[in-house]
Amino acid sequence: MSSKQCIIIGASAAGMSAAIYLKRRGIDFELISKDVGGEMALSGIVENWPGIIHTTGLELTQSFKQHIASYDIVPKLLEIQKIEKSDNGFLVTTSKEAIETQSLILATGGHPKKLGVPGETEFYHKGLSYCTVCDGPIAKGKPVAIIGGANSALEAALMMSKLSPTVFLLTKNAFMKGENILIEEVKKQAHIHLLLNAVTKEISGDQFVTRVSYTDAQTQEIKTIDVQGVFIHIGLKPNSDMIADEWGVKNKTGEIVIDITGKTQIPGFFAAGDVTHIPYKQLGIAAGQGITAALSAINYLNTNGNK
Amino acid sequence: MSSKQCIIIGASAAGMSAAIYLKRRGIDFELISKDVGGEMALSGIVENWPGIIHTTGLELTQSFKQHIASYDIVPKLLEIQKIEKSDNGFLVTTSKEAIETQSLILATGGHPKKLGVPGETEFYHKGLSYCTVCDGPIAKGKPVAIIGGANSALEAALMMSKLSPTVFLLTKNAFMKGENILIEEVKKQAHIHLLLNAVTKEISGDQFVTRVSYTDAQTQEIKTIDVQGVFIHIGLKPNSDMIADEWGVKNKTGEIVIDITGKTQIPGFFAAGDVTHIPYKQLGIAAGQGITAALSAINYLNTNGNK
Repeated sequence: MSSKQCIIIGASAAGMSAAIYLKRRGIDFELISKDVGGEMALSGIVENWPGIIHTTGLELTQSFKQHIASYDIVPKLLEIQKIEKSDNGFLVTTSKEAIETQSLILATGGHPKKLGVPGETEFYHKGLSYCTVCDGPIAKGKPVAIIGGANSALEAALMMSKLSPTVFLLTKNAFMKGENILIEEVKKQAHIHLLLNAVTKEISGDQFVTRVSYTDAQTQEIKTIDVQGVFIHIGLKPNSDMIADEWGVKNKTGEIVIDITGKTQIPGFFAAGDVTHIPYKQLGIAAGQGITAALSAINYLNTNGNK
Repeated sequence: MSSKQCIIIGASAAGMSAAIYLKRRGIDFELISKDVGGEMALSGIVENWPGIIHTTGLELTQSFKQHIASYDIVPKLLEIQKIEKSDNGFLVTTSKEAIETQSLILATGGHPKKLGVPGETEFYHKGLSYCTVCDGPIAKGKPVAIIGGANSALEAALMMSKLSPTVFLLTKNAFMKGENILIEEVKKQAHIHLLLNAVTKEISGDQFVTRVSYTDAQTQEIKTIDVQGVFIHIGLKPNSDMIADEWGVKNKTGEIVIDITGKTQIPGFFAAGDVTHIPYKQLGIAAGQGITAALSAINYLNTNGNK
């Protein structure tokens, strides 16, 4: 069985940034991922990656790919079957092989929960987005719908209230969850229309989103609103199933809890990017966290490994 | 007196990244700095900024400048005279005016401590660097000197021991400070030559560094070593003097202590980048922390400000 100093799992912004730093420090590691780019590749228009006025998730992924290729880093495109603790660190089993490693960086990201309604897939990136921070500014000046019932939806509604003349906030519940103070702030904004008991039924449009249909759960009436942007915030699911709950490193939503240096409670186990409990899921943050986790893993190897 | 929702102090990687996010969210803010670029502009060759194979600190600074300009963000180039707490947040006094702000993001970076010996200024970026993580790979295969007596120097020596055939580690003290475990690791590497009581006297060379002269503090002999790279790690001084010690947000070395979201202990006061207690001083990390601090400041304004 082969043995490594470090394995990075996930090859999006965090994982590839970590790989560049490990390689530059002469660490013997593998970068294992089911794909290259992950959520980054799906990011649509990107205008908030520091130093680039306008790019796309796809272009940025391409730049990262070229960067790791310049260091002869070749990602292994494999599914992870299981991760176990072992005497010398961790045992990572893929569909092809089992590899021992002294340290582990989990950078598997997350995926937005889907509504599962007609039109949701069709209008993705045609006015429909799961990331208001990323794509909200594109809908500036247009009426929009935010779908969701907690903090993330409230924050999206407040954000869009500064950019859009009309913001509908739809929740299937009879009241908004989330922080009271955010709810109060939303209620103060006259142009945010809070639609309670609104169960989204369909997203429709032509080339681009134009309408959201929902059922009023109290009256069973079907209603529609005309919008030019739809932002769905019903939760992000971290891709952390491969880490056993018994390790005690996940919070209630399954995110990996880290400290400011990317360390988890388990020596040798680090995490970075959207899979962590950092509340902001942003490419620039994920990249920085990837670098951080790599440097922490190197410190760990310097003091605990290499024996 | 003018009043803002947020003031960012410092316009290097962290501060400019924060500014882009604040602007995209419609926050009324100022970006105040003594210069644009800070330590980023002085970074020499940069090959670890994720997504760019090869650039320079100057080029990267230029890209950031263009990015903020695309959002009509105009930094105010002013010295900060003092920062005080006020009823509504903070009062920032510059050489030109006093501005009230509800929230504050400190992104003032740090500066490496200098040895103060002949040749140090002359050979800066000609084989002499204060950042081994940044510039070490350039000296791959060449004999190098690391100057410093604690963790940062030990880590630099361990890093270079993987890249260079001969690594001299010079400290003026009779023993190395820093973590025992790092010291043990350094001692295990036969090609790291630990020079104790070595008081650096001069850095010399021709176009490029070739030699370090030092006095042996025990014998007063003057000795020389031939090297093609010199990395000075005698400490980084955070640019945090403008924050009063009484605020209780600094650690012993003057770094601002933050949590994973960029918050300090003081509501409305955030920090990002090299001025914080994050142990790794890297551009990519600073940019991510700038974004993080901006999003935390926005959350703060949504729940505490805007009243």
